[in-house]
Amino acid sequence: MKIGLLGHGVVGRGVTAILDGKYPDLEITKILVKDLSEGNDPRYTLSAEEILNDPEIGMIVECMGGVQPAGSYVLQAMKQGKHAVTSNKKMLASLLEEILAASSEHHVQVRFEASCGGGIPWIHELEHIRRIDEITGFRGIMNGTTNYILSAMHENGTDFAEALKQAQKLGYAEQDPSDDIDGMDVRYKCCISLFAACGLVISPDLIPAFGIRHIHASDAAWAKQHGRVIKMIGEGSPQGACVMPRILKSNDPMSAVFSNQNRLETDSPTLGVAAFSGQGAGSLPTAHAVVQDILDIARGCTQMKTEYERIDQTGIFEGTYYISGNGAEALNLPVKEKGNGFIITEHILLNDLMQALPEGHALFIAEVCE
Amino acid sequence: MKIGLLGHGVVGRGVTAILDGKYPDLEITKILVKDLSEGNDPRYTLSAEEILNDPEIGMIVECMGGVQPAGSYVLQAMKQGKHAVTSNKKMLASLLEEILAASSEHHVQVRFEASCGGGIPWIHELEHIRRIDEITGFRGIMNGTTNYILSAMHENGTDFAEALKQAQKLGYAEQDPSDDIDGMDVRYKCCISLFAACGLVISPDLIPAFGIRHIHASDAAWAKQHGRVIKMIGEGSPQGACVMPRILKSNDPMSAVFSNQNRLETDSPTLGVAAFSGQGAGSLPTAHAVVQDILDIARGCTQMKTEYERIDQTGIFEGTYYISGNGAEALNLPVKEKGNGFIITEHILLNDLMQALPEGHALFIAEVCE
Repeated sequence: MKIGLLGHGVVGRGVTAILDGKYPDLEITKILVKDLSEGNDPRYTLSAEEILNDPEIGMIVECMGGVQPAGSYVLQAMKQGKHAVTSNKKMLASLLEEILAASSEHHVQVRFEASCGGGIPWIHELEHIRRIDEITGFRGIMNGTTNYILSAMHENGTDFAEALKQAQKLGYAEQDPSDDIDGMDVRYKCCISLFAACGLVISPDLIPAFGIRHIHASDAAWAKQHGRVIKMIGEGSPQGACVMPRILKSNDPMSAVFSNQNRLETDSPTLGVAAFSGQGAGSLPTAHAVVQDILDIARGCTQMKTEYERIDQTGIFEGTYYISGNGAEALNLPVKEKGNGFIITEHILLNDLMQALPEGHALFIAEVCE
Repeated sequence: MKIGLLGHGVVGRGVTAILDGKYPDLEITKILVKDLSEGNDPRYTLSAEEILNDPEIGMIVECMGGVQPAGSYVLQAMKQGKHAVTSNKKMLASLLEEILAASSEHHVQVRFEASCGGGIPWIHELEHIRRIDEITGFRGIMNGTTNYILSAMHENGTDFAEALKQAQKLGYAEQDPSDDIDGMDVRYKCCISLFAACGLVISPDLIPAFGIRHIHASDAAWAKQHGRVIKMIGEGSPQGACVMPRILKSNDPMSAVFSNQNRLETDSPTLGVAAFSGQGAGSLPTAHAVVQDILDIARGCTQMKTEYERIDQTGIFEGTYYISGNGAEALNLPVKEKGNGFIITEHILLNDLMQALPEGHALFIAEVCE
């Protein structure tokens, strides 16, 4: 099968590095780039149409990033009977319904293992488990940047700003880190996981997401002192999804995920809790996931279920909320002073709480914080 | 497809609980039991021949345990053109070459996900990763019994005998626990993993295995005091395999595997280290793995590679060995006193060391024990 590759950045270069010359029946024949000076590969082209209209190309692999024009290219390719593989979480989460519809309508596959958890075979395993079980819940450390920052804060007492600088120096955080630290990246991944795990489609901006920007060294120190660890957790269930820093017990396996590693867990009736960990990003691990998708399509594995139910709200995440600093008074809610913050002693929906909370405070879901 | 089930114990009952009535194209039509009083299922039979000679049965599922007669039944079924699924690690490890040969010769599949790591999709993931990478190594906590015992010793300072009693009371250890605590169970699993990961076949009794029987509360306490955790690790690579208690750093993710949980890790060039954790035993998780195998066969997934290379020794496991108690003097080797034991300061092959060590001492591979 001939393959058209859209994008030759970090992930795209990993894909050619793994695939070129390895499988006699698979060949990347054209590569869309923004600028021909990116390299001297004879397959480079500046014209997306040249790839999308090539009748010999049976599959496109999209590693461009961004919602557009990536999304239009993927939809156009599928419409022309080409299978699609994408590593682009933002595009996929934003256009999920259209892409699933295109898969059914045009009888082509869409696969997206690399969009969530990098090299970890998360989407594949969800698909596999659902052959037998209904998944009752999932949760994960899905973002290496925030896990690196929170690990540094926990282990060395580093303040947020300094930990972020370290992460940027090591290439774990971008110059504008907002998407990672404000939870947008995890929100896209939760959106995709919620479809793969529970067959639910929700617009990503309807998933409550709270980032780590306002967490102070004193919060991390307080948690550590009480045998707790702060982790950024994306989670979901048939009731919806959310993205929140959580104060976990130190013997929770999530607490042992260090540096920029990822860990994803699923729960279901017969398998119980199963967890998958590894490199959540990086050129070769992510490209490994892309190539697994390519092989699944080329080897004739069937398309995962594209049926879904659309939901427009997710509100059931109740729990014990912990608010650091002095934001809680302004909430006009029953609170109890605790460490260097407050616990809300009444059940309240996460969405309602997030709307009520004044800017600049750190909010956590806490496990047994007495 | 009609299925014959051999054995209706803990795993077999899980298989019928999951499968009966769930998939219109799959039906368990006969079940081999040792005693008709086991239940009043009309599918029960005492005659293996009745199943093996039934031309309507296209697949047998063996959950009997023990090398014989289970092994003969599986081989006989394959010879008659029936696919085989087994959860029986001892049988599979002992007869691996014959079973692989039968698969090639008679063009039938053999699958064994449940033989290693219970519900964890370990064999499947190794097969998957090898489509792209050569696996350079694997290691795992593959036995819930020993992990429960070692966890109790680490967390509560419990002595070995008492921790074993607790494990027996909870159903995590058998009345005769030798196979688990002396490392035989992990040896079978290493043998199967070495084939699935590296395409190597070795007789299980050639894999060095050292158990946990002689580990004292004082060893666990000494390790804990030095920020270390003792875990029973099965491991392998293209150079071979071994089963040994290891003294790990407390920030090793293996150290965070508590109670009777399992965790398996693989390393390969493009994926890097990937880890899979969950229930390593239990009726439903193990049966879940069996049913995944059944579905793979019924849905037309191709047989995993049956080519292998036979090896007859595995000797490269060198490292820092730690011997507790006073066994080290008898070895006539350069040792250094350390805590309540000795470190051997010279490189020595594990097989040689195990032969030289007097009975009754605990032996560990230690990570950076200075």
